[in-house]
Amino acid sequence: MNIEELSVKTIRMLALDTIQKANSGHPGLPLGAAPMTYAIFKKFLSINPKNPCWVNRDRFVLSAGHGSALLYAMLYLSGFEKMTLEELKSFRQWESKTPGHPEYDLECGIEITTGPLGQGFATGVGMAIAESHLAATYNRPGFNLVDHYVYAIVSDGDLMEGVAAEAASLAGHLQLGKLIYLYDNNHISLASETGLHYTEDVRKKFEAFNWQVLEVKDGNDLAAIEKAIQEAKTESTHPSLIMVSTHIGFGSPKQDSFGVHGSPLKPEEVVATKKFYDWPEDKPFFVPEDVLSHMRETVNKGSQIEKEWDALFAEYTKKYPAEAEEFEKRVKGILSENWAQNIPSYSSETKSIATRSVGGEVMNAIAKNCPSLMGGSADLDPSTNTVLKGKGTFHPPVPGAEKMQGVVAGPFGYSGRNIMFGIREHAMGSILNGMALHGGIIPYGATFLTFSDYMRPAIRLAALSNLHVIYVFTHDSIGLGEDGPTHQPVEQISSLRTVPNLMVIRPADANETAQAWKIAIRAKSPVALIFSRQKLPVIDQTKYASAEGVTRGAYILSDCDSSAPDLILIASGSEVGLALKASEKMTTEGTKVRVVSMPSWELFEQQSEEYRHQVLPPSVKKRISIEAGVSIGWERYVGEQGVIIGVNRYGASAPGELVMEKFGFSVDNIIQKAKSL
Amino acid sequence: MNIEELSVKTIRMLALDTIQKANSGHPGLPLGAAPMTYAIFKKFLSINPKNPCWVNRDRFVLSAGHGSALLYAMLYLSGFEKMTLEELKSFRQWESKTPGHPEYDLECGIEITTGPLGQGFATGVGMAIAESHLAATYNRPGFNLVDHYVYAIVSDGDLMEGVAAEAASLAGHLQLGKLIYLYDNNHISLASETGLHYTEDVRKKFEAFNWQVLEVKDGNDLAAIEKAIQEAKTESTHPSLIMVSTHIGFGSPKQDSFGVHGSPLKPEEVVATKKFYDWPEDKPFFVPEDVLSHMRETVNKGSQIEKEWDALFAEYTKKYPAEAEEFEKRVKGILSENWAQNIPSYSSETKSIATRSVGGEVMNAIAKNCPSLMGGSADLDPSTNTVLKGKGTFHPPVPGAEKMQGVVAGPFGYSGRNIMFGIREHAMGSILNGMALHGGIIPYGATFLTFSDYMRPAIRLAALSNLHVIYVFTHDSIGLGEDGPTHQPVEQISSLRTVPNLMVIRPADANETAQAWKIAIRAKSPVALIFSRQKLPVIDQTKYASAEGVTRGAYILSDCDSSAPDLILIASGSEVGLALKASEKMTTEGTKVRVVSMPSWELFEQQSEEYRHQVLPPSVKKRISIEAGVSIGWERYVGEQGVIIGVNRYGASAPGELVMEKFGFSVDNIIQKAKSL
Repeated sequence: MNIEELSVKTIRMLALDTIQKANSGHPGLPLGAAPMTYAIFKKFLSINPKNPCWVNRDRFVLSAGHGSALLYAMLYLSGFEKMTLEELKSFRQWESKTPGHPEYDLECGIEITTGPLGQGFATGVGMAIAESHLAATYNRPGFNLVDHYVYAIVSDGDLMEGVAAEAASLAGHLQLGKLIYLYDNNHISLASETGLHYTEDVRKKFEAFNWQVLEVKDGNDLAAIEKAIQEAKTESTHPSLIMVSTHIGFGSPKQDSFGVHGSPLKPEEVVATKKFYDWPEDKPFFVPEDVLSHMRETVNKGSQIEKEWDALFAEYTKKYPAEAEEFEKRVKGILSENWAQNIPSYSSETKSIATRSVGGEVMNAIAKNCPSLMGGSADLDPSTNTVLKGKGTFHPPVPGAEKMQGVVAGPFGYSGRNIMFGIREHAMGSILNGMALHGGIIPYGATFLTFSDYMRPAIRLAALSNLHVIYVFTHDSIGLGEDGPTHQPVEQISSLRTVPNLMVIRPADANETAQAWKIAIRAKSPVALIFSRQKLPVIDQTKYASAEGVTRGAYILSDCDSSAPDLILIASGSEVGLALKASEKMTTEGTKVRVVSMPSWELFEQQSEEYRHQVLPPSVKKRISIEAGVSIGWERYVGEQGVIIGVNRYGASAPGELVMEKFGFSVDNIIQKAKSL
Repeated sequence: MNIEELSVKTIRMLALDTIQKANSGHPGLPLGAAPMTYAIFKKFLSINPKNPCWVNRDRFVLSAGHGSALLYAMLYLSGFEKMTLEELKSFRQWESKTPGHPEYDLECGIEITTGPLGQGFATGVGMAIAESHLAATYNRPGFNLVDHYVYAIVSDGDLMEGVAAEAASLAGHLQLGKLIYLYDNNHISLASETGLHYTEDVRKKFEAFNWQVLEVKDGNDLAAIEKAIQEAKTESTHPSLIMVSTHIGFGSPKQDSFGVHGSPLKPEEVVATKKFYDWPEDKPFFVPEDVLSHMRETVNKGSQIEKEWDALFAEYTKKYPAEAEEFEKRVKGILSENWAQNIPSYSSETKSIATRSVGGEVMNAIAKNCPSLMGGSADLDPSTNTVLKGKGTFHPPVPGAEKMQGVVAGPFGYSGRNIMFGIREHAMGSILNGMALHGGIIPYGATFLTFSDYMRPAIRLAALSNLHVIYVFTHDSIGLGEDGPTHQPVEQISSLRTVPNLMVIRPADANETAQAWKIAIRAKSPVALIFSRQKLPVIDQTKYASAEGVTRGAYILSDCDSSAPDLILIASGSEVGLALKASEKMTTEGTKVRVVSMPSWELFEQQSEEYRHQVLPPSVKKRISIEAGVSIGWERYVGEQGVIIGVNRYGASAPGELVMEKFGFSVDNIIQKAKSL
């Protein structure tokens, strides 16, 4: 047996032992897909295990994350130092580096958190977008600074998910030739043969999506796999899908059955499997010496490749010092010193202005000195106001396309910074994750707040993986009016707040919006900016407090003269102006009112108890919260005796101001509620 | 000009006037798609405007819901009495029947709420599934009791959404020949030409999905449209997509531009448009008499068709009285008297059992005498335990398929009651809505609770439309263990609670699970059942309270002897058993503890204040809530002095019991927290 076959066998057995030791996991995929994984890692993947975060490495995505044991085995064998044999033996155990599904951990070589199907597929598209954009922006003749592939292994489950279809359609349109996906085509899903629910013509579908489709008839045929990947690499304007026919659980007694998908084998089945592979039964985690040295060749090879790249970059730095500096800063996530200098401030004499409009102005101001900022909307630019003006459209060089309606002025090509995601919110969410994972880009994506529902699985992964992604969610309440309940968010602000590690900011006016964008740019984790469709008055910062209070999540916007207010009004977003009006009226009637603007619960919770008590003194029990969304959770701030003015039903189609009034967002209703206290 | 062309012109002008009067809306689609809509309604749609809920009517779905003005115009002209000209004049106004996007309102002829793109497409598939299932179940030779089509108008936006791809793939697989979708192919989306983001080969994609694809080159060519629909009707084993080339905003100065998609025309543009159509400028809402009478022919025709069907049904009733009775009951949503008789009850001497397993037993018990119950999972049957045993697989009669792994015993064909949704959670959600909208079916869909995120837009529409859909969400917490944070729900219980009109029930043990299923079957709106992966002890109903307390949302499960407890422990699901254990230990230590089981906030909030205060007396301030999910909202029940034991971060991969303990779900931690109070 040659060393390649022995290596593949070792990978299979190592993954199997990993799962059996944990007595938990998914043996089906590792046994079936080991050869293609070997081929990718050993023959193609340009990586440096000694420096897993080398910027121009190829990216590998195990979209079928349930095959994690296979990935961990590969990373161990390839020489990632943090991925030890001990870690394989601690598979799925407390605080190991080998959780049930891969979790983003670059030191171990894990590029992306996967498991929720379809996500890896779509996120890889984001990585390829980042690659092509950075290449178009920084590469120079003779200097292919950014030039790498994105490989993935995808499963039936990935391909059935809608998010993959969205991403595939966009990837084909964008001609992302550096995407190379291998489809582990085993005709078996968790619960059945795929013939019972999945009989579409996958080749034809991907061809319709403008992909190159290749086939490998025998998933154990290393030469054929290698040939196909080689062919995929030479195709530069179409992403490639390589359909590799495999057998789930290959070599086990449960081969080709759905029982092997997600449960460990029984002891006797393990014995039979090891017999099939002619493998020592009594040596779990056995790795032949020659296999280890064969696999570890990747270490030297990788160091060498990076060394060459370092030399290239040194040359580049001499020739293009400004570009080199900018590139390096971007990759390291360092902002330029002057990134915030153009952010406008707004006088209260300015006309009323929607926070979505301000958002557009602020992000354009930031974009001038923040080249990393890049993104787009799900076909809603005219409504979300999220175009980066003059920064061009991210698009392949299709003749004639640059004249189409909707093109943004500026460079038309991969160096354009406005991405047209199409009406594909979910793929947009996943692609943003891929761009953030790639590095060098601060991605943003916009849609109506209601439709944040379409991208929740991607938002969750951003938060779970701690990715710096910015969401711009506009049309944030029933206040949007006529479009009606299907478009009026009611539960979304609250439900986004339930997502751990996601920061939600709903600014009250123009100046709070500027602050919110600043926070979003500086953040290290995902931020959702929530903006109004309707115009809002600009709050007078000379009369009331400075909008810099946004950085603390909540702050005293206006206060009564004496130290202890009778009543505290707590509001966010468009309801803050209303609270101020009500407060003014009540003040003239002799009530001592404090108004607290609370754009972000998450930021407020990060403050000291002292500060929180200063803003919301425990002794003041009369409190009213005002937010045009469901009440859930506001009890935390209004307390047992407080009143919550919220929206605990769906909205209604009518002019926005009328809807707001009908739903109780009026000065009169606030005053009435205050009197009831 | 012939009456047909005049009618189409009238429809265009009526929709235009409707939008202009409101000064809000989307003129682009109505102007472009009026001819195909006319053809569907006038030439094909088998409906009875005098009885809009006639069971065997054809269903029409305007998936591109932003074209609502077109639909309202059609319904008015077709003779739906509640859809008056006055309603058109009140478009997008408070309490009108003509909201910005269509809202399910059968009396007006509106079959489905649309607007969020892709949903109408996927929901129509559910309607067709319902049709084919009821037909297979009740039709007899010579008695095509159920025999109707599902028509839809879909847009670029619909087709870009992943949920549509999922649904299309499944519809093709299921050979739903009665689906006829017309694609308003106008090459313009809200923000640009589609050439900038949507260049996939739609024909090829749908052929790959096993659809018949037809083309109409000129969307104004009524004869061609009619011919294509006719052809679609004759194709019985493939759904049909008719690609109709149209011009957005046809006849207006903004024709073929994205500016006409979503904003009313300017007054001078209206003038120009009316001039183009040679239409009186000064007569808004003008409907020529002969057009009205031509269109209203639908009324008599419809009455006649239903009359014939009534006669057929009368004959059927004589020949198949049992079937007729059952059919009628199902359609009316009446349960059989004995539907609940087989539901087991569980003794505390039973071994510990996961609520997902009990859920499976209970639904199978119900299914015996509840023929309406039908559904499936997103390829997770072995894990969600949601197979209806012996009830067969819903599937077309493909030779050999009945022998595939995963087939459920029982009838193999459209009369099967187990739907294999594949790994398509989102389409599953929308399809459930379609089945519920169709009537005659109580649909359920299952997946892991985490992946409820994938179907949120569909859940929202179920709740907004008040549809009786049952979700079975299993693997409900970090307690699922090894699969790790990607699969461990943390925020989902809480975020589902934010959805207005959705009832969430998380039972504590086997008997609460049986109660929860009973509530779900009796409900008139959507219910999410939340079940554990891990085994849970059966609570002793002789020692503690009866599980019937579930019907009140929360109830006193165990209490101290004296009337006023020192401490109340409030828990849901798997944490109730833990609360009981902690309570027992504290009781022996002399603390007076009450344990409240709270499976459903929504049900509890529906109870009288008296009952709520009885369960949670305002005087008892020492309260601890215990639920393995985010804390948000529990303040409502624990109050200002209470403690919330929750999970405010992502989970971890390790054996479930260990994870629970590490996250503070232990008797010791509860007692420690109690002492801190």
